[in-house]
Amino acid sequence: MSLKQILQNIVENVNGGIGAVVMGYDGIPIDEYVCEIASFDVQLLAVEYSAVLKEIKRTVEVLKIGDMEEISINTDKLRVIVRTMDEELFVVLAVNSDGNYGKGRYLLKLNAPALRECLV
Amino acid sequence: MSLKQILQNIVENVNGGIGAVVMGYDGIPIDEYVCEIASFDVQLLAVEYSAVLKEIKRTVEVLKIGDMEEISINTDKLRVIVRTMDEELFVVLAVNSDGNYGKGRYLLKLNAPALRECLV
Repeated sequence: MSLKQILQNIVENVNGGIGAVVMGYDGIPIDEYVCEIASFDVQLLAVEYSAVLKEIKRTVEVLKIGDMEEISINTDKLRVIVRTMDEELFVVLAVNSDGNYGKGRYLLKLNAPALRECLV
Repeated sequence: MSLKQILQNIVENVNGGIGAVVMGYDGIPIDEYVCEIASFDVQLLAVEYSAVLKEIKRTVEVLKIGDMEEISINTDKLRVIVRTMDEELFVVLAVNSDGNYGKGRYLLKLNAPALRECLV
């Protein structure tokens, strides 16, 4: 399966799934899948979050509390789950606030190895 | 119940709970409860995270994706759940990576109104 197909599978199998992007910490997207009725600009969101993620990564390293695995940023409208893929890349999944957040987390974790494999 | 008692209840009712702190975005703690065998400095962690949270709050406002409710930052050693209480305060709960993350999220959400009531 291609990177885009895996992202599409994740988004379409999570209730309320809006879109998913694989991106570098430098804010440059590798690939994405966004559902047609997306109410948010998922790529813009991922770009804005990449700066925040770099800051979180730095803080986690300073505190020596292990390797960063997953970040969630939830508002009353949107749940954003970020899973690190390696030192350079992460995958972002955006889900409506009434969507299935738990399944989103589960599918990102489950598919992270397959996403990595697409990139080697 | 006092602020500290509510924090203690949360920490002691979550498997793997390490500590909880109520803190301002300026990094100044209001109150905390840390279990005796804590393997991390929970207050230092909350102070370091307050700068990151301010940055996330700003990003969420720029993107206009609703009001910030909850952030999770998970590493292979530690899960940190942050719930906003109001414009100025948030509560942080640190849980071991093999602890009950879901119950931690649930108890923070459940107790957020009681924590706010202690402060008015």
